[in-house]
Amino acid sequence: MSDVKKVVLAYSGGLDTSVIVKWLQETYNCEVVTFTADIGQGEEVEPARAKAQALGVKEIYIEDLREEFVRDYVFPMFRANTVYEGEYLLGTSIARPLIAKRLIEIANETGADAISHGATGKGNDQVRFELGGYALKPGVKVIAPWREWDLTSREKLMAYCEEHNIPVDFSSKKKKSPYSMDANLLHISYEGGILEDPWAEAEDDMWRWSVSPEAAPDQPTYVELTFEKGDIVAIDGEAHKPHEVLEKLNKVGGDNGIGRLDIVENRYVGMKSRGCYETPGGTIMLRAHRAIESLTLDREEAHLKDQLMPKYAEVIYNGYWWSPERRMLQAAIDETQKNVSGVVRMKLYKGNATVVGRKSEQSLFDESIATFEDDAGAYNQKDAEGFIKLNALRLRIAAGKGRQQS
Amino acid sequence: MSDVKKVVLAYSGGLDTSVIVKWLQETYNCEVVTFTADIGQGEEVEPARAKAQALGVKEIYIEDLREEFVRDYVFPMFRANTVYEGEYLLGTSIARPLIAKRLIEIANETGADAISHGATGKGNDQVRFELGGYALKPGVKVIAPWREWDLTSREKLMAYCEEHNIPVDFSSKKKKSPYSMDANLLHISYEGGILEDPWAEAEDDMWRWSVSPEAAPDQPTYVELTFEKGDIVAIDGEAHKPHEVLEKLNKVGGDNGIGRLDIVENRYVGMKSRGCYETPGGTIMLRAHRAIESLTLDREEAHLKDQLMPKYAEVIYNGYWWSPERRMLQAAIDETQKNVSGVVRMKLYKGNATVVGRKSEQSLFDESIATFEDDAGAYNQKDAEGFIKLNALRLRIAAGKGRQQS
Amino acid sequence: MSDVKKVVLAYSGGLDTSVIVKWLQETYNCEVVTFTADIGQGEEVEPARAKAQALGVKEIYIEDLREEFVRDYVFPMFRANTVYEGEYLLGTSIARPLIAKRLIEIANETGADAISHGATGKGNDQVRFELGGYALKPGVKVIAPWREWDLTSREKLMAYCEEHNIPVDFSSKKKKSPYSMDANLLHISYEGGILEDPWAEAEDDMWRWSVSPEAAPDQPTYVELTFEKGDIVAIDGEAHKPHEVLEKLNKVGGDNGIGRLDIVENRYVGMKSRGCYETPGGTIMLRAHRAIESLTLDREEAHLKDQLMPKYAEVIYNGYWWSPERRMLQAAIDETQKNVSGVVRMKLYKGNATVVGRKSEQSLFDESIATFEDDAGAYNQKDAEGFIKLNALRLRIAAGKGRQQS
Amino acid sequence: MSDVKKVVLAYSGGLDTSVIVKWLQETYNCEVVTFTADIGQGEEVEPARAKAQALGVKEIYIEDLREEFVRDYVFPMFRANTVYEGEYLLGTSIARPLIAKRLIEIANETGADAISHGATGKGNDQVRFELGGYALKPGVKVIAPWREWDLTSREKLMAYCEEHNIPVDFSSKKKKSPYSMDANLLHISYEGGILEDPWAEAEDDMWRWSVSPEAAPDQPTYVELTFEKGDIVAIDGEAHKPHEVLEKLNKVGGDNGIGRLDIVENRYVGMKSRGCYETPGGTIMLRAHRAIESLTLDREEAHLKDQLMPKYAEVIYNGYWWSPERRMLQAAIDETQKNVSGVVRMKLYKGNATVVGRKSEQSLFDESIATFEDDAGAYNQKDAEGFIKLNALRLRIAAGKGRQQS
Repeated sequence: MSDVKKVVLAYSGGLDTSVIVKWLQETYNCEVVTFTADIGQGEEVEPARAKAQALGVKEIYIEDLREEFVRDYVFPMFRANTVYEGEYLLGTSIARPLIAKRLIEIANETGADAISHGATGKGNDQVRFELGGYALKPGVKVIAPWREWDLTSREKLMAYCEEHNIPVDFSSKKKKSPYSMDANLLHISYEGGILEDPWAEAEDDMWRWSVSPEAAPDQPTYVELTFEKGDIVAIDGEAHKPHEVLEKLNKVGGDNGIGRLDIVENRYVGMKSRGCYETPGGTIMLRAHRAIESLTLDREEAHLKDQLMPKYAEVIYNGYWWSPERRMLQAAIDETQKNVSGVVRMKLYKGNATVVGRKSEQSLFDESIATFEDDAGAYNQKDAEGFIKLNALRLRIAAGKGRQQS
Repeated sequence: MSDVKKVVLAYSGGLDTSVIVKWLQETYNCEVVTFTADIGQGEEVEPARAKAQALGVKEIYIEDLREEFVRDYVFPMFRANTVYEGEYLLGTSIARPLIAKRLIEIANETGADAISHGATGKGNDQVRFELGGYALKPGVKVIAPWREWDLTSREKLMAYCEEHNIPVDFSSKKKKSPYSMDANLLHISYEGGILEDPWAEAEDDMWRWSVSPEAAPDQPTYVELTFEKGDIVAIDGEAHKPHEVLEKLNKVGGDNGIGRLDIVENRYVGMKSRGCYETPGGTIMLRAHRAIESLTLDREEAHLKDQLMPKYAEVIYNGYWWSPERRMLQAAIDETQKNVSGVVRMKLYKGNATVVGRKSEQSLFDESIATFEDDAGAYNQKDAEGFIKLNALRLRIAAGKGRQQS
Repeated sequence: MSDVKKVVLAYSGGLDTSVIVKWLQETYNCEVVTFTADIGQGEEVEPARAKAQALGVKEIYIEDLREEFVRDYVFPMFRANTVYEGEYLLGTSIARPLIAKRLIEIANETGADAISHGATGKGNDQVRFELGGYALKPGVKVIAPWREWDLTSREKLMAYCEEHNIPVDFSSKKKKSPYSMDANLLHISYEGGILEDPWAEAEDDMWRWSVSPEAAPDQPTYVELTFEKGDIVAIDGEAHKPHEVLEKLNKVGGDNGIGRLDIVENRYVGMKSRGCYETPGGTIMLRAHRAIESLTLDREEAHLKDQLMPKYAEVIYNGYWWSPERRMLQAAIDETQKNVSGVVRMKLYKGNATVVGRKSEQSLFDESIATFEDDAGAYNQKDAEGFIKLNALRLRIAAGKGRQQS
Repeated sequence: MSDVKKVVLAYSGGLDTSVIVKWLQETYNCEVVTFTADIGQGEEVEPARAKAQALGVKEIYIEDLREEFVRDYVFPMFRANTVYEGEYLLGTSIARPLIAKRLIEIANETGADAISHGATGKGNDQVRFELGGYALKPGVKVIAPWREWDLTSREKLMAYCEEHNIPVDFSSKKKKSPYSMDANLLHISYEGGILEDPWAEAEDDMWRWSVSPEAAPDQPTYVELTFEKGDIVAIDGEAHKPHEVLEKLNKVGGDNGIGRLDIVENRYVGMKSRGCYETPGGTIMLRAHRAIESLTLDREEAHLKDQLMPKYAEVIYNGYWWSPERRMLQAAIDETQKNVSGVVRMKLYKGNATVVGRKSEQSLFDESIATFEDDAGAYNQKDAEGFIKLNALRLRIAAGKGRQQS
């Protein structure tokens, strides 16, 4: 363990990663660089500086990555209408590649030969951090303390803190939560506690970002979302940067009880786990994006996107953002978004995010053809006969030769 | 046009298909057999008998197909979590294959050489009826009056009625609706009228099967749905036949404002069209089915199902129920449903159908492994290192050889 | 039929399309522009000029499109290792989009409002020409004489020629062939005649571009093919333009009995047909391309390419080159080819095109890891245990809960 | 290491697995049960009995699994036209699930708690054995000596033999080969030695099962293969059991120089490796199966099979035969094979396996429709116009609205 000289740690400023700082210094006898990022988790990141300093850290990185996070990760993912296992909007998964990238960039800047993180050995996040790390710096040493140390209970962790003079009070609030939580601009997640029983309903006071549908206003809120090339660029006609879009939609979505989700999902490491998620803005964005696509995408590219989406979601969920297959899929997806521009009008009401209108200068909706009224010859109904006859030909031949048809 | 002897018509009893009866008799100088089915459209079918008799029809088929419809068409489709273009639950599409099958069976019973229907030349339904017809009886003659005749306006239709003594009053109610509607146990659909402008919000008085979320009760309703091999067999512990399941879920769903949908979709004949749908029971079923699958399906079969689903949806939407590719996909889907049994608990509240619990004797959720607490060695966290290292190997080799990674 | 003013015809100079010139002039009372292209069919195109002039054509386009054909159509298709139904290299399909594009461009240049072609109403080519035409000029009028006229037998055609003074002798050679043939730089195809019996073996004197394996030299020929970004740029170290590459490979392949194929395929219009093809150069290219990819592509992008390929082949076979879905797929494919560079060594011998070596500066083959000898720690075999254990976890949990496993 | 009582070893009778017997006895102080199977590797299995006895083994299983291997593993795989990465017929991959199954069954019969095999930690076979083992007996202990011991060179192995009185002469022949080889009824494989340089051509004396094309007879051999439901049941009209089919095709194929393959493939553990394979019978079977399918499968099920195949191949290559996803895919594949019956005629000549005829009572080839001659109205060419027009509609609308088309 003596071969590590300097390690960059993804440092939240919380108790666990503070212990890791100390444990790395002690166990590997190495320098620790801390990296703390604001990706919209809703907590101040600046306090991490004093805590790191108190732990003897000399190189401290604290960064606001909110815009980059939404622009380069969340938005590209939403262009694909990405949903994992029919339900999950990948809020945690999509933040990890950015953290991994910055860990490696900082390692390169500071001459570190290792990176470290506070994810456990049972979850998906260790995979996402480490696949990213290896993909971007193949010779990097990865240290995953939770897979190595013996501080496997809260008691042992506390004893370690006392022994090493790590102040524990600052994390008291988090300690009280019975849930394991993670948050960024896209969502907040809850695992553990009573959620480990899939039959048990989540307690109402668990949720933090949204009111319950019951507690939401009795009047609906309408919003108009303007898309350009697949991304939202304005809300109610006012231009916003990517992270501002998501902040605003989180606010209005959460206020209207939108975006709560309670699922059992399949982890990449092979087990099922139960998780609850609040994704107010993402829930609105997904429906709105599908709506603007419904007007502006060709049918066949839309269907092909739908067929590729589960694979794309799996790639991201499993941690392969920094991979050739993700770039390949992204190239296909982005090719389709050139004309995905226009405005979607949504009604938000007590948990419902409903599309009520959509319009676009790139619209492929042709009223003169679609109409139930007289179309003045825009569409020749007689064409349908040949269309059906030839599409039926293979079926007719088979039936004519006595093939079973039912 | 003299080569048709007898034609079986899908007869609703409404004005349009009554005109078709007469028009067929006159144009083809042939006998007309009418077939009217109760598939849960919510209208009496028995009155069609007198109307058909009044038109001189001698062979009249009136049938209650509700159970068969849900058992053999709706349920198999829901086993695949089928959604077309991310939103549409295929309520109209799934009813057509059954009608086509019965048209052909009746043609065989009555010695008819042709079938006919009242679908227009612009829509998907003509395709679904006719592909089914050709697949099941390859030599059948199909007559699609809307593609042939010149009764292309309401005025001409009325003139034809007057001329041929077809009573028009019975359809007065339907006439007043500005929408083209279709209903069966799975849904009711609306097209046309102001909906032809995709930016216009649907009027609230258009919807017939559900109250608005605003008008729904202020207290949530909880239901427990029992699945066996992928299908719902009981509600709140009480066993029901397939169609009863859907009837009950439509009722409780509609009462709680659930299942309204407003979309622009891509028709098989090549145009976009705007449709509104109410699918209260189906909306509940879909989420519940995903929930029971989340507990009982293996990850890889679940993901493979998700990848196949868009194709399966397309097959049904386009009218290829009676095709080898549908049977092939169904074989794969049904193979996965053997263990999809258990109970899902749902909360219904003002438009929201939320899963709040799920349990199963076939559950693959393993609390002893998934737990955040001490797992007593059920899972060895050190295994994760090798898992990640080998999954990263191809990425590390590529990066080591200087490949671009971002 | 009076509404066509000028029509651009894909004119081969042969008898059939000469008749079409006259028939169009007569039937539509319109001007005819002829377009004749050298796409490597192996026949002089210049003689078409005099024939067209003799028929009274004033605007005559004769073009050498060989380079464009291979560079912009054949090569992009081969980047995907495209094979239709496991066997067919799409030699005819890939030439049609280029012809369609030029027909439309010439229509725009000459102010024509219609295009015409000599394909029959039973085949795929009509679809490919017309889909391309409509996609590139939506209001174009398409005239397909074989679907319209009554010259449905050779006798009627001859009578028409006599009546209209169309010289028939120049096509005497072609007439004698019992096969319907089509050729371009990628292949020559044969249909009809005794091939209409799928059990009958093709006669040896049918084949025109290759010797039989039996008649090929007794000594193998070796070639080295240099790839850059997925395309062959040099043969045996000598740089060539795209069409020269294919010409040279056709020659050496044909000389060695390579590239004959005899299949039954499924046409887009719904029937099966039997076709024989000679694709000497393409057969070599396909195997060589796979070989250079085997060294330079990442595993997951390679597998994803393989999964997308059948769809891509179908898109091209069915005539949708000029479509959003083709562009979407092409974007994904081309994204993967950036590093597909290097050299493949092949042995050609009596019908066999065998890869015997491949090398690349972009190679991802890592001998230090792959070796059966001591790898000096490049790969830690112990990692495999964790890799397998976690990949097996879902299976173990299922088996532990009594799930059927076989 | 004291917790293993009895271990079932996949025992070839060769030097390496003989060393493993001793090493297991010594290291784990446990009883060893040997299992040796004839799966057509071309070596006597009975001699393994005496060798095992000499090593003190009391429970010795020696079995002829040839028929089961081909019937239940090879044939189901060939129904899918399975090819890995465009080239590899999965000869090694498909034998492992059967071995794994028998190891577990014998463990259950003999009360063993562990299984063991002689595969290295770098390859795919360890994964295949162990995934199978875990899937069929989740609590089984797997011992992979090559990942554990320090006998990492031939010298150390020999020293171990001398020390433990393991006779080494019987393996002298194998020792001389510079290649790592594996054989069963489907193929023989070669890795290592000069093959580790992908540019080096394989030496001609490496190949064991086939003559070179150059050395094959100057006269072609014709065979007629009879299929029933996707499997070959007779050759030249004579019925054979599954393994006899493969034995006979291996003989005639090898005699005609058919089935040699030289590739670089992507291993599941993350590296590329170069392998050479001889698969004479399999190469013939694959082409013949595609040919009989070309006549008897519907187009859309055929295309769907082609789209699923790469995934199915990956599942088998990676070792997931005993998995829900394999069963799901198999259900889809087998559903399509009900009518895949008939006869294929093939010409075998100097490395070429060429289909020259195919016939079937289940044929969907309709000469009356496909013919270039007068079809007496079986197909109405005018239908093609509507077919094309509606298929073009979405493209025309897009072009009409100014969308880029190229």
